[in-house]
Amino acid sequence: MCLLGWGNVNRRLFELLEARRDQLQDQYGFSPRITGIATRRLGWRVAPEGFHSHSLPRIGVRSAAAAPSPGNLREWLKAAQADVLFEATSLNAQTGQPAIDHIRAALELGAHAITANKGPIVHGYEELSRLAAKQGCRFLFESTVMDGVPIFSTFRESLPLVRVEGFRGILNSTTNLMLTQMERGLSFKEALGKARDIGVAESDPADDIEAWDAAVKVAVLARVVMRMAVDLKQIDRHGIGHLTGEMVREARAAGHPYKLVCRASRKGHSLAASVRPEMVPLADPLAHVPGTSSIVYFETDIFPGLAISEIDPTLDTTAYGMLADFVKAVGSNWQKFAFA
Amino acid sequence: MCLLGWGNVNRRLFELLEARRDQLQDQYGFSPRITGIATRRLGWRVAPEGFHSHSLPRIGVRSAAAAPSPGNLREWLKAAQADVLFEATSLNAQTGQPAIDHIRAALELGAHAITANKGPIVHGYEELSRLAAKQGCRFLFESTVMDGVPIFSTFRESLPLVRVEGFRGILNSTTNLMLTQMERGLSFKEALGKARDIGVAESDPADDIEAWDAAVKVAVLARVVMRMAVDLKQIDRHGIGHLTGEMVREARAAGHPYKLVCRASRKGHSLAASVRPEMVPLADPLAHVPGTSSIVYFETDIFPGLAISEIDPTLDTTAYGMLADFVKAVGSNWQKFAFA
Repeated sequence: MCLLGWGNVNRRLFELLEARRDQLQDQYGFSPRITGIATRRLGWRVAPEGFHSHSLPRIGVRSAAAAPSPGNLREWLKAAQADVLFEATSLNAQTGQPAIDHIRAALELGAHAITANKGPIVHGYEELSRLAAKQGCRFLFESTVMDGVPIFSTFRESLPLVRVEGFRGILNSTTNLMLTQMERGLSFKEALGKARDIGVAESDPADDIEAWDAAVKVAVLARVVMRMAVDLKQIDRHGIGHLTGEMVREARAAGHPYKLVCRASRKGHSLAASVRPEMVPLADPLAHVPGTSSIVYFETDIFPGLAISEIDPTLDTTAYGMLADFVKAVGSNWQKFAFA
Repeated sequence: MCLLGWGNVNRRLFELLEARRDQLQDQYGFSPRITGIATRRLGWRVAPEGFHSHSLPRIGVRSAAAAPSPGNLREWLKAAQADVLFEATSLNAQTGQPAIDHIRAALELGAHAITANKGPIVHGYEELSRLAAKQGCRFLFESTVMDGVPIFSTFRESLPLVRVEGFRGILNSTTNLMLTQMERGLSFKEALGKARDIGVAESDPADDIEAWDAAVKVAVLARVVMRMAVDLKQIDRHGIGHLTGEMVREARAAGHPYKLVCRASRKGHSLAASVRPEMVPLADPLAHVPGTSSIVYFETDIFPGLAISEIDPTLDTTAYGMLADFVKAVGSNWQKFAFA
């Protein structure tokens, strides 16, 4: 297996794979080996016998999940004999690159591609899904929305025949944490600092504050579970930058707290989608999603309302989403082992 | 396919199969035929060419989902050449019979067994699961808890390696509807009448009011997702029979509404489980689950809190759970077709 990017996600994934080594062996007969790690700073590292905690390349904590130049990607994947690529480079919301190229290269070489990067779904979902099917590989991306909570896999594997008419939810942890902190007395700036301190904020504040992260998640959900291609420009996007602590506290006190609400629904053959701060009545469960928790309600032809929510996620859950994708990709019948 | 029991669930399933016939054919290449229908009143009906709406046996609406004598079950399954048995007979919470015998017979004959009946999970889960695995068949029961919302399938197919430490939730529609109606001014008796009118109440009021239905669901969840065998006697069970409309309204007004809360958690190698009316603070999302809606929060080693909830279910969702089980049983690779 190859790890491309060495930020929080792939580091946690590495630790999780080590921590769950015995369980993977016992339950599924898997004995995964990480033979490639690549970052912009370190270049293309290969260890045919497998990297272990003690043999990890020395990389500063802040080296970020950036991609090295694409020229050597194929050589690296070949040298590492990759069966699986874990793609965790930085999001480029405008083009999805270079992550699309990384995933395409892996699939062309016959490796499964697993990503936590939303860009390739927004900009390359159809091409990459077709390529994966043609190559007999999987292209999986559970960790792109709600930190590895099984949303895509639930629709794919547990909800046959269901048509999703729309959804609404709270999908950006940073802004929800900030709103919660502002309700408790902090100013906007203090709340942003708090989100940074605990490590949930995106490196560019605009991604959270101006609701880019939430809008990209709306596009990913719409593309995959509603099967509707969405241009980010189509999403009516409003951030929380104009909200002061006082406004947020007053709204909560008046029984209509502010939440950054994501919405999408079918309008004929097109999609109406928005992300904006809304004053939510207390009778709405969205009003009671605090801190870094998140929630999404789906409206479907079978279930009038089906909601999934995650309470107080840890950094492990994003890495777990990639691990779960790995188990699904490699062991097509794993559930039989797990449940027999 | 054979339908055993002809109450609401199997009738709706029959309609849903007819309504989704083209979709099943287009997406999965399935062309299901119902060749057997059996009820206590009608006996063992077989139609090798398949039952259709116009050829349905005439059965009164209130004939209930009761089982005929077990003696002819095997002959019926053989005559109908059953590949799948849909078992929807009445719950016997104390023994799980005769549903266990029905399911065992189907599996022994090499047919998949799909049930909406909780009794066989509480009293026969291990035996029937082993038998199914040995026979290369599936034993599936998504509709036993939360009306076909994919709980079991999500844990089985989407959450590898995850260990469930406990759960809590609202799992009985009738009592939750009653509490909501009492909050709005109805007496206990009026609220029970309302639940009966809309068709959610169990035929024996004690099943709902004395929390038997909720307790059985706790046992089913614990058995399957926590892999802990639970005797119903172990569950600390308290119903809502002592609550008056006034008590319920006062509790809501005081900011601690009553909810019939189900709980289970590991205590070493054993399970602590309860069902009881609790006064829930308004900050708890359980306080905002109205009417026939339901919710369950799982505490796991990976996800500190993962919640699934269903809002305003219709009678279709239980039947849908069986249809989804059918797709999973018959088309092991169906998700590839669905998502390619």
